[in-house]
Amino acid sequence: MIIGKVVGSLFSTRKSEKLVGNKFMIVEPVESMRNTGSRLVAIDIIGAGIGEYVLVAQGSAARIGCDMADAPIDAAIVGIIDEGQDWSK
Amino acid sequence: MIIGKVVGSLFSTRKSEKLVGNKFMIVEPVESMRNTGSRLVAIDIIGAGIGEYVLVAQGSAARIGCDMADAPIDAAIVGIIDEGQDWSK
Amino acid sequence: MIIGKVVGSLFSTRKSEKLVGNKFMIVEPVESMRNTGSRLVAIDIIGAGIGEYVLVAQGSAARIGCDMADAPIDAAIVGIIDEGQDWSK
Amino acid sequence: MIIGKVVGSLFSTRKSEKLVGNKFMIVEPVESMRNTGSRLVAIDIIGAGIGEYVLVAQGSAARIGCDMADAPIDAAIVGIIDEGQDWSK
Amino acid sequence: MIIGKVVGSLFSTRKSEKLVGNKFMIVEPVESMRNTGSRLVAIDIIGAGIGEYVLVAQGSAARIGCDMADAPIDAAIVGIIDEGQDWSK
Repeated sequence: MIIGKVVGSLFSTRKSEKLVGNKFMIVEPVESMRNTGSRLVAIDIIGAGIGEYVLVAQGSAARIGCDMADAPIDAAIVGIIDEGQDWSK
Repeated sequence: MIIGKVVGSLFSTRKSEKLVGNKFMIVEPVESMRNTGSRLVAIDIIGAGIGEYVLVAQGSAARIGCDMADAPIDAAIVGIIDEGQDWSK
Repeated sequence: MIIGKVVGSLFSTRKSEKLVGNKFMIVEPVESMRNTGSRLVAIDIIGAGIGEYVLVAQGSAARIGCDMADAPIDAAIVGIIDEGQDWSK
Repeated sequence: MIIGKVVGSLFSTRKSEKLVGNKFMIVEPVESMRNTGSRLVAIDIIGAGIGEYVLVAQGSAARIGCDMADAPIDAAIVGIIDEGQDWSK
Repeated sequence: MIIGKVVGSLFSTRKSEKLVGNKFMIVEPVESMRNTGSRLVAIDIIGAGIGEYVLVAQGSAARIGCDMADAPIDAAIVGIIDEGQDWSK
């Protein structure tokens, strides 16, 4: 998993029907976990807000671990990081 | 998932029979989501046009989430991004 | 998927018995789809020749999409790109 | 798999219920196995301590290989490297 | 798959019980198939020696293709490259 900051959200009206009802958040990985151009779009099953630091699972873990095994989802916010931790170093 | 712009399409006459009937689009990820050489080929289940910004799912999510679990597909356009959003920053 | 050029082939006498009978081709992704050091070895289910441009599927799509779900294969040539297309830009 | 050093841990109170009870460790891959920004968060099924060098499995191997096939987990510490080895070169 | 050179081996006494009995080899991809920091640890089902060039499968192909579907394994040596080939160019 990686830690990232929620920097925005995204709307898509024309999309796979399996994606209906999901929120799409744009996540920027923290510096120690990012390379050039590594922002990503993740669904949010936790209810994270813009500016919060979150735990993101990628790959089949996102689909299966979020009970959407049949949906075209490859990244999901699966936790919100508690404040006051020095993880970004 | 990542956001990309559809920059072209692709024709392949000699291909796996499981791919017959699919459209192959060339997608360039937006700047915040790309590194060097990260264009990719995705099938299109939504009907995106050249120049549109789309949501792309990769890995097993593309096959399974697009109801082609047995096909050699590792990337799919699964949504078209609504216009007027500031997601590219 | 990515587009690449077949630049060579490979022989391995001592290998997993599940790989017996496959051809191993070395593929160089086209410039817009490659980073440093991104050549790869793919099995070929289509019959591509050296110098041809091909469509390569990676990950579980290669195994499952090529009817070799139990084999240690993570990349496969699944189509040959029709000539005369301007996809390399 | 990759070898990394455990450099920290992470707390997340609001998270997927499938993650409850897991420890989240921050792992920095050793130099020969890392690129820019390649730290990651892994669950720990072995009981590694801060400063120990560990073996990390990624992708579906982390979920399935750690008997948490339904959880949103994409990386796991699956071994502790014996001391006195020259693997970091 | 990628081609790499076996540059070392690794011992881990405290590890997942599903990994017991496996040999862990450190593999350096050949130049045309590596980027910064891309060495990896792979199990060896073929019996490769230090200095040999091998074929490595990654992801679920390593687990499933090597008959260890339930083990936390994401890379495996699945072939030894025949000598005298000019694949490294």
